[in-house]
Amino acid sequence: MEKQTLLYEGKAKKIYSTEDQHTVWVEYKDSATAFNGEKKATIDGKGRLNNEITSLMFSMLEENNIPTHFISKQSPTEQIVQHVTIIPLEVVVRNVVAGTLAKRTGLPEGHVLHKPIVEFYFKNDDLGDPLFNHDHIEALELAAPKQLEDMRELALQVNTILTAFFTEKKVRLIDFKLEFGNNAKGELLVADEISPDTCRLWDSETNEKLDKDVFRRDLGSLTEAYEKILERLGGNLHV
Amino acid sequence: MEKQTLLYEGKAKKIYSTEDQHTVWVEYKDSATAFNGEKKATIDGKGRLNNEITSLMFSMLEENNIPTHFISKQSPTEQIVQHVTIIPLEVVVRNVVAGTLAKRTGLPEGHVLHKPIVEFYFKNDDLGDPLFNHDHIEALELAAPKQLEDMRELALQVNTILTAFFTEKKVRLIDFKLEFGNNAKGELLVADEISPDTCRLWDSETNEKLDKDVFRRDLGSLTEAYEKILERLGGNLHV
Repeated sequence: MEKQTLLYEGKAKKIYSTEDQHTVWVEYKDSATAFNGEKKATIDGKGRLNNEITSLMFSMLEENNIPTHFISKQSPTEQIVQHVTIIPLEVVVRNVVAGTLAKRTGLPEGHVLHKPIVEFYFKNDDLGDPLFNHDHIEALELAAPKQLEDMRELALQVNTILTAFFTEKKVRLIDFKLEFGNNAKGELLVADEISPDTCRLWDSETNEKLDKDVFRRDLGSLTEAYEKILERLGGNLHV
Repeated sequence: MEKQTLLYEGKAKKIYSTEDQHTVWVEYKDSATAFNGEKKATIDGKGRLNNEITSLMFSMLEENNIPTHFISKQSPTEQIVQHVTIIPLEVVVRNVVAGTLAKRTGLPEGHVLHKPIVEFYFKNDDLGDPLFNHDHIEALELAAPKQLEDMRELALQVNTILTAFFTEKKVRLIDFKLEFGNNAKGELLVADEISPDTCRLWDSETNEKLDKDVFRRDLGSLTEAYEKILERLGGNLHV
């Protein structure tokens, strides 16, 4: 497999074409951003940590019969994934109130929900990634109603699997964000990444934050927090 | 029927008890507010215009078999309605993009939607009336899923009836907000008001705004705009 042309550069990743049109090469960057790009930093080692953690998470999900875009880890900071057309929605699943859900509902951070809440946000930096309901999504033709139901169903399945997985590692899965894409065959796959950048993860005993809130709220060293997660997942800490 | 104790005073109305516990007395005030109360004014005659228009609208809906809280107009600024427990949701139906839908979606004001969009907002001034999806509503136990479906269905029926009604009067129904309540028997009723305070109404030929946007955006005389609506509805302009 060969890394060819840069197809896309996002805040945290670069995507390159390969000699196989159905496959792309992902390179994780050392950059951290928050608040729609208003807060930025370069953090040595972050790209490697997220690549390791995402590779572990996607492999685990595949073993649990969740269809994902993941093919293989290629290097400490790179992975090979199926080429998908990303659906421009961020699908957020929440088990415990935190972040914007606290602001929206007035419920206190840490409040445990009886049932998970699923939210769809329109991926659009200019609009600030607004919350959408099903009618908004249909009006903008971002996803058909059936596909939306499939995304919700898959997101809830992923939540069940991840929650069980993290509980064993003494980590609470507070909430997480998924992105979905369709491959050339039209299959719906979990795409993008699953890492402390896209999940809220709290230590089960101390509620210590082990995710991007460490960066958002200046709570200490992001790499130390992410290393704690990688260590508990049994990942390779030192290359 | 006798006006007794003041039960509640809102931005635009006062609610009094009567000698019948199932019935309350509504008095429309001459106050206009916008942007969650940030912009305020007293506008002579506004209370009367909204009382007249709302009475006409609810009578018309009742004739079309929509269950509402309305009983009778009592005076130029007052009406008698069923006592209901208000469900703390604003149900917005939109046929054409305007206001916050333009901001949320990036679609231009005036864009005609293929299908109406229904939105639920949590009635909560402190939180700025945030958009809620079904999961938020269930988590806060604001309405049961079945009741939510009934509200949506009724709101869409009201939209069909109002759109046909206004089209005859050479007025475009851009969007409107409904509130719902349950009476003592547990019946779901359309409540609150239906007036140019709660609807966006544009002249069919000129697209002149004949609603509260005249006040929100300082486009001219609010009473002149509301009088135009009342006149087209065949209402009593001068008491």
